[in-house]
Amino acid sequence: MDFLKKLLKGDKLTIARTITAVENSNNSEILKEIFPYTGKAYHIGVTGPPGAGKSTLVNIVIQKLLEENKKIGIIAVDPTSPFSGGAFLGDRIRMTDLALRENVFIRSMATRGSLGGLSQKTKDVALVLDASGMDYILIETIGVGQVELDIAQVCDTTIVVLVPESGDSIQAMKAGLLEVADILVVNKGDREGCDSLILELKFAFELREQKLGWHFPVLKTIATESKGIEELISNIKSHKKYLKSSGKFEEDRKRKLALRIDELIEEKIKSHLKEFSSWRNGDQLEQLIAKVYQRKLTPYHIADEITKKIIVGKK
Amino acid sequence: MDFLKKLLKGDKLTIARTITAVENSNNSEILKEIFPYTGKAYHIGVTGPPGAGKSTLVNIVIQKLLEENKKIGIIAVDPTSPFSGGAFLGDRIRMTDLALRENVFIRSMATRGSLGGLSQKTKDVALVLDASGMDYILIETIGVGQVELDIAQVCDTTIVVLVPESGDSIQAMKAGLLEVADILVVNKGDREGCDSLILELKFAFELREQKLGWHFPVLKTIATESKGIEELISNIKSHKKYLKSSGKFEEDRKRKLALRIDELIEEKIKSHLKEFSSWRNGDQLEQLIAKVYQRKLTPYHIADEITKKIIVGKK
Repeated sequence: MDFLKKLLKGDKLTIARTITAVENSNNSEILKEIFPYTGKAYHIGVTGPPGAGKSTLVNIVIQKLLEENKKIGIIAVDPTSPFSGGAFLGDRIRMTDLALRENVFIRSMATRGSLGGLSQKTKDVALVLDASGMDYILIETIGVGQVELDIAQVCDTTIVVLVPESGDSIQAMKAGLLEVADILVVNKGDREGCDSLILELKFAFELREQKLGWHFPVLKTIATESKGIEELISNIKSHKKYLKSSGKFEEDRKRKLALRIDELIEEKIKSHLKEFSSWRNGDQLEQLIAKVYQRKLTPYHIADEITKKIIVGKK
Repeated sequence: MDFLKKLLKGDKLTIARTITAVENSNNSEILKEIFPYTGKAYHIGVTGPPGAGKSTLVNIVIQKLLEENKKIGIIAVDPTSPFSGGAFLGDRIRMTDLALRENVFIRSMATRGSLGGLSQKTKDVALVLDASGMDYILIETIGVGQVELDIAQVCDTTIVVLVPESGDSIQAMKAGLLEVADILVVNKGDREGCDSLILELKFAFELREQKLGWHFPVLKTIATESKGIEELISNIKSHKKYLKSSGKFEEDRKRKLALRIDELIEEKIKSHLKEFSSWRNGDQLEQLIAKVYQRKLTPYHIADEITKKIIVGKK
């Protein structure tokens, strides 16, 4: 197919159109065609709480990678409203200068459906960028409890960005964030509390280090002054080297592919469920719900009955 | 059953044990028993970004409702780690004084599985509190893009709490938050920017007001000084009155019950999927994944094949 040739060559318009097609369709035909040409790009996730300076950091990392003549795809994932259908701008505006560079392709994820659905689409978009010949794919996402875990699933190296003034609520978020981190960055490193946060994080990482054989670095950056970026880049490269030499790279990717297959099966079943209309249409639904509202029937009994009709051999 | 009698009487120990049983089990037997006795409690959701002062506000609202001799159940939902299995404390510590009051039952949701899973469990816990004879159930949750939508699904009145200094990232969250709000509260109302935020929010609400027939109030509070609380309470009551007199109360609850049935079916199918082990076990899995890793097979083809085997009549 013509589009595939152009995509593999990295034609920007074709990349954009393919991503749009993938975003708008629940059909996996395009992805089936693209998939054989993927697996080459190195995926870097950047996540953290709102206001940690992720975009600024990503921006500078990209500049450095461009100096090495690398091709870079960027996917920005934002918290979105399942209702509004539109994303807010913000940090991303600053990134538009980058989009004009030849070796850069930036995609801001639009808002379709839930954050969960968004994470799935992000994985598909990453495949398109991978097939288009990117050396690196950077995925920036807000770390709010779930999305970053989904995103980490497609990333070889996940960088978690925190700031010294992270409060209680942020603490709670960190629990999930630390689990996905391969590299930790404390940004805005000139602010009060930075060194004690770094110590605290190093301590939290100690047990994991022994388990996994990778010395988790906790780095200090001041992204707005480009401070600490060289060290961050060299740590990304060390992590890549570690993954490759230890066999973890192949092992991780295989595990993640298996997870992806599970997700695809779940998605298929969900969409089948939406088509399965016999209980939703017409009077039967209204009568059933009225009985549930009056507490003469429970939702659990109805769910049991319907599931039996959908699943092969379910009793 | 003995436990049911005690639960319906509001015995605190029985409430606690029933909640634990419901949290730990994927089995709906207990819920089937409880469900016929539910539907009486009025559900109030309180959501908003981290640091908006939700807990302080909830705390004072409860004090006022207690003065009216109401029975109140409180569920605190926090962002959690799917890995760590433990929640952080924080605001909740301040709420422990309340737990000693006779007419109050507080449950902090433990962290099991994803935030998505947590939202489902929260709905089950709300049913237990409902059956135990609570007049009001207050559910406090952090508003970070998804959980608050799930929680709004069980709430009759949802209060969204914002603060004047909400930044860009918070703006993005607000998109989803505004959609679930029945009442908006700008807390920390003595801080700069409060009045302009209130104006902005009132403007954002104008279209929705015309559509839905409820005049969305945008209130100013200073929770730490108990300011604006009387007005908040009176607005909660007005909203309740509006729902009941317009027929929206029954309509909303029926719609939400239908949604709940859909969720239960999805959950059932997911857990069936986990049991469906034929492709996961043994050599077949490893061989398949190796082929996917080598790009000789795609995840999409495998998902197609497996789905056909699970779903009745799927081609």
